[in-house]
Amino acid sequence: MPSPSSEVHSIDVSLGDRSYKIEIGTESIDTFSDSILASLGDLTHALVIADAAVENPWAMTIASSIAKQKTPSGDDIRVNLIAVPSGETSKSIGQLDTLWQWMLESSADRRSVVIAIGGGVIGDLAGFAAATFTRGIRFIQVPTTLLAMVDSSVGGKTGINLPTAKNMVGAFWQPSLVLIDTSVLSTLPDRSYISGLGEVVKYGVIDDAPFFEWLEANAGKLLDRDDNAVRYAIAESCRSKANVVGEDERETSGRRAILNYGHTFAHAIEATAGYGQVLHGEAVAIGMQMAAHLAIELELCDAELLKRQTALLKACGLPTTYAAADPDAMLPVMKRDKKVSHGNLRFVLPERIGSVTLLGDIKEPNVTKAILACC
Amino acid sequence: MPSPSSEVHSIDVSLGDRSYKIEIGTESIDTFSDSILASLGDLTHALVIADAAVENPWAMTIASSIAKQKTPSGDDIRVNLIAVPSGETSKSIGQLDTLWQWMLESSADRRSVVIAIGGGVIGDLAGFAAATFTRGIRFIQVPTTLLAMVDSSVGGKTGINLPTAKNMVGAFWQPSLVLIDTSVLSTLPDRSYISGLGEVVKYGVIDDAPFFEWLEANAGKLLDRDDNAVRYAIAESCRSKANVVGEDERETSGRRAILNYGHTFAHAIEATAGYGQVLHGEAVAIGMQMAAHLAIELELCDAELLKRQTALLKACGLPTTYAAADPDAMLPVMKRDKKVSHGNLRFVLPERIGSVTLLGDIKEPNVTKAILACC
Ligand SMILES: NC(=O)c1ccc[n+]([C@@H]2O[C@H](COP(=O)([O-])OP(=O)(O)OC[C@H]3O[C@@H](n4cnc5c(N)ncnc54)[C@H](O)[C@@H]3O)[C@@H](O)[C@H]2O)c1
Ligand SMILES: NC(=O)c1ccc[n+]([C@@H]2O[C@H](COP(=O)([O-])OP(=O)(O)OC[C@H]3O[C@@H](n4cnc5c(N)ncnc54)[C@H](O)[C@@H]3O)[C@@H](O)[C@H]2O)c1
Ligand SMILES: [Zn+2]
Ligand SMILES: [Zn+2]
Repeated sequence: MPSPSSEVHSIDVSLGDRSYKIEIGTESIDTFSDSILASLGDLTHALVIADAAVENPWAMTIASSIAKQKTPSGDDIRVNLIAVPSGETSKSIGQLDTLWQWMLESSADRRSVVIAIGGGVIGDLAGFAAATFTRGIRFIQVPTTLLAMVDSSVGGKTGINLPTAKNMVGAFWQPSLVLIDTSVLSTLPDRSYISGLGEVVKYGVIDDAPFFEWLEANAGKLLDRDDNAVRYAIAESCRSKANVVGEDERETSGRRAILNYGHTFAHAIEATAGYGQVLHGEAVAIGMQMAAHLAIELELCDAELLKRQTALLKACGLPTTYAAADPDAMLPVMKRDKKVSHGNLRFVLPERIGSVTLLGDIKEPNVTKAILACC
Repeated sequence: MPSPSSEVHSIDVSLGDRSYKIEIGTESIDTFSDSILASLGDLTHALVIADAAVENPWAMTIASSIAKQKTPSGDDIRVNLIAVPSGETSKSIGQLDTLWQWMLESSADRRSVVIAIGGGVIGDLAGFAAATFTRGIRFIQVPTTLLAMVDSSVGGKTGINLPTAKNMVGAFWQPSLVLIDTSVLSTLPDRSYISGLGEVVKYGVIDDAPFFEWLEANAGKLLDRDDNAVRYAIAESCRSKANVVGEDERETSGRRAILNYGHTFAHAIEATAGYGQVLHGEAVAIGMQMAAHLAIELELCDAELLKRQTALLKACGLPTTYAAADPDAMLPVMKRDKKVSHGNLRFVLPERIGSVTLLGDIKEPNVTKAILACC
């Protein structure tokens, strides 16, 4: 059996002069500082920003192994580390301000590099701090949740929340490198891990029928957190997302919208369920079910698609229905959605496994019916 | 005599798909909404952010003339207006937060357009708010100080200050259009207007010998605020800055550094003089004198250059010496300058009128001597 750490998947995100690599290994953390030095040869100062939950040992290990490295001219590499409180409330103006001040006090300059270690919260927050400090410095993503590994660390969206509006301010700012060690997932609770699988299934439906089939055959291994299967699923997910992002980096052509499959329903579920009741990936799973029902109703796809999607989500341990779904509460939220224009309800809908389409002018009764089909 | 408003200078800033026009007129404000609609055909919502000093009548006039326009499909254009307190302290996290909240409450979305009306403070602050709201919306600069017309409104640098560090966070975010009506300068105090001329002279020295000669011949007209002369000086300044920015949009190649001629000295003067004692353009004038002395000492240029620069600055009403200059106080500030690396003192120095060079490893005694030469 090959040693797990020897099988590193490497994926290229092609974005012209903003291109970068995603490296996915297991027990690969000891190689991170080499990868960082290889990618950013001129590193002199690292600003490590970590989720408090992974500060010890993950962030400390990375920080100290960088500190042991030298610049090409033999100088020490300076390393500063800050821990940010866990949780969505850290994606705030207050935390951003704290990071800016800390970067200044750490004598950061344009050549300093931010290393974000944590889930999507830390990636989004630290990425935005990097995008704006001295009008932009480089940053590296080290995602530590499954959701961050397969979704938020790839694609360059960074930002924070306003008190009443999620992800309302931010920047498109691509990382210079994404480093993934799946061993870090060992401390991740099952529910969070399974929630991340919701996004993994999404890539199969929107873009990649062979991957969907692979997931049907390997859902059990994924649920058991088999290293090889987990790495492969992350790699395929990153490849899908990287392809879409490469075609529509700044969300201008509309292509990037397919990543929102299930998400208009999901956001409405999250907003009406009460904070933390339904995890994001769980809401996406239910949302994809609603979208599939809607697509069948509109005769965009056949019932077989829904059947396969339902079976795969169940095999991954994800919910496929939501007893508390309330169309009267969800519809107003959906009409306010950022992606909706002038009350025109638009949805990403499946045509077949591996292919979705964006459809506008959907009628409310159809949406209501799709929601009620999943109660 | 042609009506002043008929002579509109139009300058192209060439930055690939981020290219834009600068339009410079006199009593041209009534044409602004036409220019805006012509440039941004899909305008549906304008967010007017104005310096309190120019809210009435300037910002209100622009806001109401936009509100009278229609979208191509005959809909009304929504207009919201907010006044920001005058002064550098508004370039703060607190004001940025206020603007973000206001944009959200105004139901701004990705197609909304920010219109910044004011000096460099408003341009930098509102530009950064535009760069970050929903990860970037378009914005238009309507500069109302001479400094903003010839410098800050062109080039895409936006940002705010941290409590102890100016311009420490921000973004490169190009405007979609810059609209200048020189009539707005009628309310600008002489000292502020003359300070702006400091940057105008700078362009002649760093990049444009014929423009320097034109300035020598027309300094009197500029001091009298002759409309034709003022428009021409603004147009030539914008052209110079646009050329430099076009070669080095994100300050990576080093070319953009020439815009800092006189500025390393100027920042040290501003920092040691006590807030508001010396205006920025005045400090730049003195800084250019120090840089010219330094260049002569290093045998980079002849004394004739200094003589012509001194005469032109005086003709523009600008200071050429600074009695309180203190090398012992200024040098530590210069060594901390963002543009200085590892204590290596670097300066943009003149070789001849129209040409400067960036030189590193300058010795402290030489710098001290240059400062003392201007006391
Ligand atoms: N930028 C993007 O493209 C993008 C895409 C999707 C989601 N997001 C954002 O991502 C965020 C959600 O990301 P998330 O689900 O990773 O949430 P998260 O970052 O809040 O992490 C979830 C929880 O797991 C903990 N945690 C992290 N790593 C751990 C580990 N290895 N072991 C144990 N606990 C660990 C965290 O402390 C936190 O409590 C949201 O803010 C969302 O807006 C961004
Ligand atoms: N972005 C860039 O490239 C760049 C370049 C240079 C300077 N700047 C920034 O610009 C700022 C300085 O700009 P500024 O000198 O325009 O300062 P400012 O914006 O503070 O304006 C100076 C004063 O003039 C007032 N004012 C503005 N227009 C007026 C008018 N028409 N009549 C009467 N009063 C008027 C303002 O209320 C203010 O009190 C600084 O914050 C500096 O960092 C930015
Ligand atoms: Zn999602
Ligand atoms: Zn200046």
